[in-house]
Amino acid sequence: MRFTSQTSSDGVTEQFFTLDEIPGVLWTPEGACGTRPLILLGHGGGQHKAAPANVSRARRYAAEGFAVLAIDAPGHGDRPQDEEFGRIAAEMRAGMAAGRNPGALVAGMHGHLAGQAVADWQAVLSAVQRLDRVGAGPVGYCGLSMGCGLGIPLIAAEPRIRAAVLGLLGVHGLAEDAARITVPVRFLVQWDDQLVPRDQSLALFDALASAHKTLHANPGRHGEVPSFEEDDSLRFFTRQLS
Amino acid sequence: MRFTSQTSSDGVTEQFFTLDEIPGVLWTPEGACGTRPLILLGHGGGQHKAAPANVSRARRYAAEGFAVLAIDAPGHGDRPQDEEFGRIAAEMRAGMAAGRNPGALVAGMHGHLAGQAVADWQAVLSAVQRLDRVGAGPVGYCGLSMGCGLGIPLIAAEPRIRAAVLGLLGVHGLAEDAARITVPVRFLVQWDDQLVPRDQSLALFDALASAHKTLHANPGRHGEVPSFEEDDSLRFFTRQLS
Repeated sequence: MRFTSQTSSDGVTEQFFTLDEIPGVLWTPEGACGTRPLILLGHGGGQHKAAPANVSRARRYAAEGFAVLAIDAPGHGDRPQDEEFGRIAAEMRAGMAAGRNPGALVAGMHGHLAGQAVADWQAVLSAVQRLDRVGAGPVGYCGLSMGCGLGIPLIAAEPRIRAAVLGLLGVHGLAEDAARITVPVRFLVQWDDQLVPRDQSLALFDALASAHKTLHANPGRHGEVPSFEEDDSLRFFTRQLS
Repeated sequence: MRFTSQTSSDGVTEQFFTLDEIPGVLWTPEGACGTRPLILLGHGGGQHKAAPANVSRARRYAAEGFAVLAIDAPGHGDRPQDEEFGRIAAEMRAGMAAGRNPGALVAGMHGHLAGQAVADWQAVLSAVQRLDRVGAGPVGYCGLSMGCGLGIPLIAAEPRIRAAVLGLLGVHGLAEDAARITVPVRFLVQWDDQLVPRDQSLALFDALASAHKTLHANPGRHGEVPSFEEDDSLRFFTRQLS
């Protein structure tokens, strides 16, 4: 794990790093030492580890005492795009433009990335938990849209993750992994999501095996999750991981 | 308005009263004086103003500074049951036992009670707002199941109500009034509700005209709303009415 930059402001330290080929960011409270709960932050499709929405949420959670970790998903941010990724992305865009079922197209893209994404998260999680200022404390995962599509296979495979905020995605391709998830989940739905049909979204919530899961639905389109849901997610992680 | 008893404990004063034929309870912080936000608490079918779930929520909210008001719905608690009510209630029970659509049966009962219930709430609200320790501050309404069925016509008719917690009910008979509601709403759904079909419940949320409305769905049957939703409702009212 090689740290490439470090800055601190408003009580939060932000460190960029690479682990093998994986570029990432770690946020911790300034001067942190000792084990603390850790949130893995999965970004949306076409976004990256330090997209404004990620950074704002990460700094907020770190200011409350959490460690927060984000990495670029395969084919995103500072990572190379392989030929297959380019082909699938182009097919997805063309299919959407032609009015084909976005659920199937998006699931195809996520399916292509998921195997690598799960391995990346597991490697980075292990490395970060060896740092004194993070340690092997409780772990949560927060990811919407593609962050949900790559997060569900991760949570199904990774017993260290004990709570998750998911949503903005339909069930396509995810039912089996969702049925293996039993940790507490907050699941966000945008009631007027132009990319995710409502029934597909409710079906993904339904498919989660968790006894403790809550769906929060708000009016608005795919990207318009109200900011009070970020506060609510913070309370949820605080309750589940403290 | 005639107060018939008063007790105080744990910082909350509980006063039973009658206004004309309407029996009610008012909870306020002990020693309260001056205007404060007021929550109207509508009880469920077959319940009454001082049912344990109502009292527990009311005392909690009063301890946080709210005034909280509950009254017996027509035909419930200390109120007489008219012949028509008895006939409709018997028909509802028989219909449910025979496997008929519970949405239509319940809506018939609520429709019979709603006109009187709305007039009762408006009269008691006006009387309570004349008390120095309540005053004409912002008003919220909280009612699930029958409390939602009688609350929706009330909120549609009553401009003093500025925020509401509703749910555990389907759209049957309520679409028109719901379309007249524009105040912020929290809407609770039990995902495995044996009395309210899921699609009917989602349709009632859909029918609300409020730009700010959030649906919270949790696993479990009709009466099994998790207690953390009560905390969330308190935060919602605090934010909306302060």
